[in-house]
Amino acid sequence: MQRAAALVWRGCCPRTPGPWGRSQSSAAAEASAVLKVRPERSRRERILTLESMNPQVKAVEYAVRGPIVLKAGEIELELQRGIKKPFTEVIRANIGDAQAMGQQPITFLRQVMALCTYPNLLDSPSFPEDAKKRARRILQACGGNSLGSYSASQGVNCIREDVAAYITRRDGGVPADPDNIYLTTGASDGISTILKILVSGGGKSRTGVMIPIPQYPLYSAVISELDAIQVNYYLDEENCWALNVNELRRALQEAKDHCDPKVLCIINPGNPTGQVQSRKCIEDVIHFAWEEKLFLLADEVYQDNVYSPDCKFHSFKKVLYEMGPEYSSNVELASFHSTSKGYMGECGYRGGYMEVINLHPEIKGQLVKLLSVRLCPPVSGQAAMDIVVNPPVPGEESFEQFRREKESVLGNLAKKAKLTEDLFNQVPGIHCNPLQGAMYAFPQIFIPRKAVEAAQAHKMAPDMFYCMKLLEETGICVVPGSGFGQREGTYHFRYLCLSAAWGWSQLGLGKLGASYHRARAGSRD
Amino acid sequence: MQRAAALVWRGCCPRTPGPWGRSQSSAAAEASAVLKVRPERSRRERILTLESMNPQVKAVEYAVRGPIVLKAGEIELELQRGIKKPFTEVIRANIGDAQAMGQQPITFLRQVMALCTYPNLLDSPSFPEDAKKRARRILQACGGNSLGSYSASQGVNCIREDVAAYITRRDGGVPADPDNIYLTTGASDGISTILKILVSGGGKSRTGVMIPIPQYPLYSAVISELDAIQVNYYLDEENCWALNVNELRRALQEAKDHCDPKVLCIINPGNPTGQVQSRKCIEDVIHFAWEEKLFLLADEVYQDNVYSPDCKFHSFKKVLYEMGPEYSSNVELASFHSTSKGYMGECGYRGGYMEVINLHPEIKGQLVKLLSVRLCPPVSGQAAMDIVVNPPVPGEESFEQFRREKESVLGNLAKKAKLTEDLFNQVPGIHCNPLQGAMYAFPQIFIPRKAVEAAQAHKMAPDMFYCMKLLEETGICVVPGSGFGQREGTYHFRYLCLSAAWGWSQLGLGKLGASYHRARAGSRD
Repeated sequence: MQRAAALVWRGCCPRTPGPWGRSQSSAAAEASAVLKVRPERSRRERILTLESMNPQVKAVEYAVRGPIVLKAGEIELELQRGIKKPFTEVIRANIGDAQAMGQQPITFLRQVMALCTYPNLLDSPSFPEDAKKRARRILQACGGNSLGSYSASQGVNCIREDVAAYITRRDGGVPADPDNIYLTTGASDGISTILKILVSGGGKSRTGVMIPIPQYPLYSAVISELDAIQVNYYLDEENCWALNVNELRRALQEAKDHCDPKVLCIINPGNPTGQVQSRKCIEDVIHFAWEEKLFLLADEVYQDNVYSPDCKFHSFKKVLYEMGPEYSSNVELASFHSTSKGYMGECGYRGGYMEVINLHPEIKGQLVKLLSVRLCPPVSGQAAMDIVVNPPVPGEESFEQFRREKESVLGNLAKKAKLTEDLFNQVPGIHCNPLQGAMYAFPQIFIPRKAVEAAQAHKMAPDMFYCMKLLEETGICVVPGSGFGQREGTYHFRYLCLSAAWGWSQLGLGKLGASYHRARAGSRD
Repeated sequence: MQRAAALVWRGCCPRTPGPWGRSQSSAAAEASAVLKVRPERSRRERILTLESMNPQVKAVEYAVRGPIVLKAGEIELELQRGIKKPFTEVIRANIGDAQAMGQQPITFLRQVMALCTYPNLLDSPSFPEDAKKRARRILQACGGNSLGSYSASQGVNCIREDVAAYITRRDGGVPADPDNIYLTTGASDGISTILKILVSGGGKSRTGVMIPIPQYPLYSAVISELDAIQVNYYLDEENCWALNVNELRRALQEAKDHCDPKVLCIINPGNPTGQVQSRKCIEDVIHFAWEEKLFLLADEVYQDNVYSPDCKFHSFKKVLYEMGPEYSSNVELASFHSTSKGYMGECGYRGGYMEVINLHPEIKGQLVKLLSVRLCPPVSGQAAMDIVVNPPVPGEESFEQFRREKESVLGNLAKKAKLTEDLFNQVPGIHCNPLQGAMYAFPQIFIPRKAVEAAQAHKMAPDMFYCMKLLEETGICVVPGSGFGQREGTYHFRYLCLSAAWGWSQLGLGKLGASYHRARAGSRD
């Protein structure tokens, strides 16, 4: 075989391959004879296989784009090929992507970004002066005055200053230091980086990371990748998904048996659950973290998505600060935000930041070093983040339009959240907690025993079974609760409220109920 | 201490903090008394320290933005504060960022991106029709027709098709399958992802990754992060940095003693060395990888940067294909490209792709799963990549301007590369190999023994010592060869050719020579 191969490549072949790419020389013919290779490809064992691959990567799961979404893609292809179904399109209610659902970008943000992208437009009368001013400021802070240069690894300086100023305003004057601000490639990148730098130890000293159940499955995926230990604490479904410090304590105590718990992750407002934590709850959590020496991660990407008039977003940073210096000088806290949610919905730009306070002085250098290997986050995403934290203000030319667009988007989100909650609660077998914030409903579905058995016979989690049926019968793609975690014996799914087109949704929800009844009757497809 | 803290946070404080943020209640006063806390902060031990952090992250080094660049930043701040120096600005010749050096973006690319960013511009007469057509095509392939939606994790479909078409054209008809194309957040992201999925095993079975010395230090950094084993193979400086398969064989044999070598990384054109591999060399390498069962990574981000008329870029994919089916059906190959280099220099957009062929069928799903956790690469960067692979063609309205701009940029790069090479070779104590491609010079500097001793007394690598002096005396920031790897006892630095402003550079290079002579004379400062 080697000789044949050698003949082929040692220059016995003409340089111009034949129509199917293989050389046609006599050497190739001879090689084929030696190799006993038919014109079809021979296949030898691969270097990279399920057995040889990184086992930590193999263990990773990410349900938001997992098996049900792959199924949705297959169904879309079938629809394209003209195969008839009970529906004409797949509704992708699996992912928090507002613009994919038709939400319009904020005009001012896109104007500034267009000006930054193609600075010739700074001479165009079609753009307002306040947008031009923002664009010039950003460009002047970029290498070569261009979005095309790498920025500093921590991000463009003036954007970090703007982020710090935003945080200070948001938090009623609690100071934020630009030096503690790091621009990131979406919040996911920041969360992953912080977890990466934290995880160490082996055996029973391996770092434990406390995460809420249900959680946004980035956390469990990164914990798998890093071979850290996942420590679950359960949110209280009976109590609108509240976080109870006793439950934190329970989870921590049990975890100490088999790992070194060092990190506590909070998602507020919650994903998938949508609960907005009370100030008291946040204080309790901070005290717990201080007492038990836990590094706090506060995922606050939905800070602009609070619907319930009884709820208010309090940042962990602000509450920490107001608890006095014993806490505010000592609790290591990383808080995350993103351009993907809120009212701007700029998921595709992969913009985000983290504010990381009370780091050991030697650690900061390590963090920047780690970030520097990837050079910098996309500068266009940094520019988007700048507009998010530094939008038009009253008196500015673009303010009125900005205000209208923002209110329209947030009003639409709030309305759809409420309608979704109400509609789900009309369907027998489905119960939806009040939606306080974020973008999803995470209703509980009561799956009868026979349906559970049917699912198990199909080797599926019962809620995955339900969701697959829902997808096949109605075209609605939601993510089963098993992808986020849930108490044993309970079943849920996560549904993006924005995907509700109301006439259609009633049809869909009617079918949801019908699916339930059929499952209850024990029918299988 | 706990009681005081408890008093402070259990609601004894008024909600409105005082001017310096701390509550002013009597409880706080009592707490302070109990804690014996003065108004200054108390400091307790941190959770995240050099001892407790991820040791793999601690081991990471990335010289391109390492200590010398931090020093350059300090000097810039000193200049800003008015401190007098022998120069008025720092020249950042440490990083391959063309636009930071004043290179202009390609107009057509920025026009298409502006149209995608702010589609109102599709109605503007100021944009050519061919740019609008490209923009519409990209937007139609995006969710919600917006760059602000997440794309599929593998990237926008039509952009992957365009990349595959580009590869096929570039490779003279050798077919590329869009299904093997993955858009990435710069090439760094793709390289890191592939290495991550490959690394496994423990002890003497830990995955070994063969990398060239000198290398672009992303490779060593990622190998550190993943706790894989770095296996060095030395490029031949006497022979214009050629890759010699005997050296590959030597490195592999030695490595088998202590690890499981599974991966062979090639950078072509080379970074920092700039050599362009001959076709024969590529065939030799492919045969070696086939014979020794190594997964091939071909980093080809400089494929558009070839200067020497005696050299030609051959893609690994094309050569592999032309070696016949025993190779082309079996060798697992990942090839990488980026928007950061070439003639477009769009570093800040973090655009890139990888073409991965001959993966085990079960592995592809694992790869897409891993990518899905980060959702998708920035869609703006994907759009930039689309224009790179699908630029204006003859007959199109924008072609002439595009052609002129491209030729101007590449001509300028080629000229500066030659001038840099010639100038360095005029300086005693510096020898620069011919620059065949990429964007850097990597000259060897002959540091006399006394200077080496002086460096060691400062606990610095001798070339770091030299580069620090160069920075302090001339403001030129280059990266010492020790950051890239080099044969024991040799010293180099990497210099971005683009940063040569000619009048200035002669001054700089004159000083380079002066520095050398002073070092030779054994002077220390």
